[in-house]
This record gives sequence, C-alpha cells and structure tokens, in this order.
Amino acid sequence: MEKGKNRKFYDKKERRGPRPERKYEKRERMRRETEYSEYAPEDSAADGLIEGRNAVTEALRAGAAIDKIYIARGDTDRTLSQIVALAKQAGIVVADADHRKLDMMSRTHAHQGVIAVAAVREYADVEDIFSAAEERGEKPLIVVCDELSDPHNLGAVIRTAECAGAHGVIIPKRRSAGLTAVVAKTSAGAVSYMPVARVSNIPALLKDLQKRGVWVFGTAADGNTTLYHADLKGPAAIVIGSEGDGMSRLTAENCDFLVSIPMKGKISSLNASAAAAILLYEAVRQRLN
Amino acid sequence: MEKGKNRKFYDKKERRGPRPERKYEKRERMRRETEYSEYAPEDSAADGLIEGRNAVTEALRAGAAIDKIYIARGDTDRTLSQIVALAKQAGIVVADADHRKLDMMSRTHAHQGVIAVAAVREYADVEDIFSAAEERGEKPLIVVCDELSDPHNLGAVIRTAECAGAHGVIIPKRRSAGLTAVVAKTSAGAVSYMPVARVSNIPALLKDLQKRGVWVFGTAADGNTTLYHADLKGPAAIVIGSEGDGMSRLTAENCDFLVSIPMKGKISSLNASAAAAILLYEAVRQRLN
Repeated sequence: MEKGKNRKFYDKKERRGPRPERKYEKRERMRRETEYSEYAPEDSAADGLIEGRNAVTEALRAGAAIDKIYIARGDTDRTLSQIVALAKQAGIVVADADHRKLDMMSRTHAHQGVIAVAAVREYADVEDIFSAAEERGEKPLIVVCDELSDPHNLGAVIRTAECAGAHGVIIPKRRSAGLTAVVAKTSAGAVSYMPVARVSNIPALLKDLQKRGVWVFGTAADGNTTLYHADLKGPAAIVIGSEGDGMSRLTAENCDFLVSIPMKGKISSLNASAAAAILLYEAVRQRLN
Repeated sequence: MEKGKNRKFYDKKERRGPRPERKYEKRERMRRETEYSEYAPEDSAADGLIEGRNAVTEALRAGAAIDKIYIARGDTDRTLSQIVALAKQAGIVVADADHRKLDMMSRTHAHQGVIAVAAVREYADVEDIFSAAEERGEKPLIVVCDELSDPHNLGAVIRTAECAGAHGVIIPKRRSAGLTAVVAKTSAGAVSYMPVARVSNIPALLKDLQKRGVWVFGTAADGNTTLYHADLKGPAAIVIGSEGDGMSRLTAENCDFLVSIPMKGKISSLNASAAAAILLYEAVRQRLN
C-alpha cells in the first residue's frame, strides 16, 4: 500500500512535467551560464559586447579592437551595409548569425540585428612577433594555431606558449576562436603578455615564415620523424591542428617537417593544448643546452 | 526627433527588466547546461545519477560502482543512516549537500534527500597498476593527482597519461573529481583503458610507493632540479598538484625529488594538465633512448 501510494505520487509529478524554475535556481543557473558561456563573462562592464547599430558603427569609426561582428541573417539595409563596409575596411570578420543566436548573446535585448565582440586586446602583427624575439636576442619560437575553435583550447595554448617563452601566437581570422574574454581567462592572463596575430591565410603565412628563415614544424600521426629528433633550436614555428581534424591538407603541405609525438597507449590522439605543451617544452629543453 | 523616440523605446525596455525567457531560448539553454554541467551529461540513460532512497540502497546492496553519495544536510532518519552505513562499509565517500544542490542535480525531482553519482568505471587498485606495468615488461610510470577538483583537468590528465603509456592514475577519495561522465568525456575515452585508483591518503600512498621502489617526483616552482635533469627512466610516480595551490605541504615532503619546469615568461604557472603533459612526455623521451 505504502509503495503503491508512492508510485502514484511519482506518476503525478511526471504528468505535470518539470516544475517551474525557482528563484534560487535561476540565480544559480545564471551564475553557471556566466561561468561557461563565451558571451557572458562575469564583469558586464568588461564583457566585450557592443550591441546595436549606432554603437557598433561608432566603435568601428573609433577604430576599437573588434574580434568579430555578427549580423542577423537576412537583414539588409543601408545601415547594416555601411557597417559591413566599415568592417571590411578594417579587416574585421563579419559573420551571419540567426536571430536566436543574437538574442542569446545579447545583454540589452536591443541589439537591432548587430553585435560586435570586442577583442580583449589588440591583435599584434607578425612583425611584432619577430621584434619580440629580436629584442630578447633569441631565435623566434612561434606557435601557429590552425583553426582552434574552442576558446578554452586557444587560451590554454597561449598560456603554455607564454610559460615556454614563445614569442608569439598566430591564428587565422576565420574558423578560429578570437581573443575573447573566455580565451583571456583560460590563458590565466597570458594574453596580456603574448603577442597574438591574425592572418587571413595560414598556408600563405607559413610560406612567408619560411622565406624569413623560420623552420615550420607540423604534427602528424604519420610524421616522418619523432618530435625528439626534430631540431627546434633554430628559428621555429610549431603548427597545432584543429581539435577535430588536425591540420588541413594545405597547411600540412606547407610544413618543412611533419613530426610525430609518440603514442604509447590505445587512444589515438592528444588534446591540442597538450600537444602544444609537449612540443613547446621540447623546444625549451633543446634550447637550454 | 527620430533619435529621441528611439531613446524612449530603450528606456521603456530597461524599466520592464529582462523579458521572460522564450521557448527556444529555454531549449538552447538546456542544451548548453547539458553540455557543461557535471551532473547533466547528454545521455540521460547513462547520466550516472541514482536518485531516491530505495534506488540508492539497492545500488549499494548490488555493489554498483559509486563515486560519491550526496545526502541532504540536516536530514537524518533510519533509512539515511542505513545508506551511510552501507556506503562506509563499501568505502564510498558520503558528502553533505544542501537541498538546493540536490534539487539542481536531480533529474527526477524526487531525490528524497539522497543522490548517488555512479562512477562510469570501477576504480582500480594500486596493485592493478603495478600488474599493468609488469605485464608490459616496463618500469612503472604512475601519475598521482593531488586534489584536482576540476573534472576537465582530471580528464585531460588521464587522456595524456594514456597517450604517454603511463600504467595508472591515482587520485584521493576526497577533494578530487571522481570518474564521472564529464571526466570520461574529457579523457576522450582514455578512462576505459587507464586504471584509476583511489586512496584515502596521498602522503601514505607516496610512502607505500617508495617502499616498492618507485621514485616520487613532485613539481615545485622552487624545485631543486629542473625536469630535464631528473632521471625518469626508473620506476617513477609523477605528482600533479591541485589547480589553485599546487601540492600540499605534506605531499611535497613525501616526494623524493622536487623538480621545476622552466618558466620563461611572465606568468608564473602552467595549467595542471599542461604540466602533466610536459612531465609525462619527458619520461617518454628518456625511456625511448
């Protein structure tokens, strides 16, 4: 009897569907979302979102460091076209997004179909990276991230690169996380010290680096030499592939060496930031001697 | 005039406060929470939560692999005492949690003050780790995680340890993430291959390892030797400190060697999983020769 009663109680609950969210649950949820969402960092003053047509136009005119601009899919009119034109002029990526995504990102709920994500820091030039190496009297050590889309991974790579004394990190403009607040946080502040440059085209960048005497090392499971036989003492760029697919074919073709990290277990790949740590500290080890 | 109108519109919006959540936003939010929350992995059948007094009691009686049991703070009665007794007998950690936390974790919303988090895998014994090394005819290479509370960090360490061919990972029963679904996911499946053992007391474990001929290497910024001068070819245990505070004093005192990872930049510490990757692959490098 007791048991039967209990069951009935459960059934009733189920029929009613999940109960409405309570106040403290909402607070807790907001806290969690704040912690995890790329677009809602803790400090709303420093959240790096610029919303609305006037605000974005003004930011572009003022030359603010902007990572990316999202425009509502399907929306076209004179103001938006003007924003797109200004962005192109400044070399800023403009991405289509559906209204839902904009609504989700928005804090003011008055985004008018356009939101710009401010970069937490100005991007550097590739030139700045070479200057940093020269200033320290060291052979350049550069990390090239080939389409790391997870901001936590990019942040982790920047942090490790800073610890290893690398001179800069280079990312592509598209299909990559940018210097957003999440990246800054995961990097434990390293974005403040490490020059991060953005380029339109990674294969072209690699060719450019090679012309300047930098050896380009990619990682591949079937690399023709293990990491420990690669000579990382000279000017070196280390290319880290994307989380899912590794380096693109074109990128791989433009590497001087494809090195492999020994895999001694049953699973087939390391996380991108772990691979970066292993490569970078092999360079540190070789350069210590 | 046009501008003034607009401003009024915004003000009105602001006075009304944030608008209520829309249906698709809720769906999206649920998806996001699912992705990030430790207690709400995607597959609800495999989510690893056992809720309610009967269910938990039965699971304990059946000897199910349970990571931890949360009991509502302040609740005490015969059934709960019985659950606590059964858990203690099985060596399972019982933690107090306030009702809010249980409500948040709960899927059925009928947890009756008790939720058990199932381990995605049975924990191994320290003995199993030594057997694994012996089977492969290798000197033991063991990772000891001293209170890594972030499941993403623990998962990342397990993944790298598997790739580096370590024979096992050891974690403390308390103040550490356990083998939960998030750890399994972050480990990219490595938890299925890597024995993970739990012990009550890390300093006692280290003494035990030393008695069995294992050299214990801790990491410390002021370590007396750099990593690259440590001999990791013999039987070795590598101790990774917690995210915030590094190793505890007692743990540090029980290490044979404190090694330092060279820090060449301005920030002062590596992420725990990056440090693990660097140490483990230095062992791989030394053991290759």
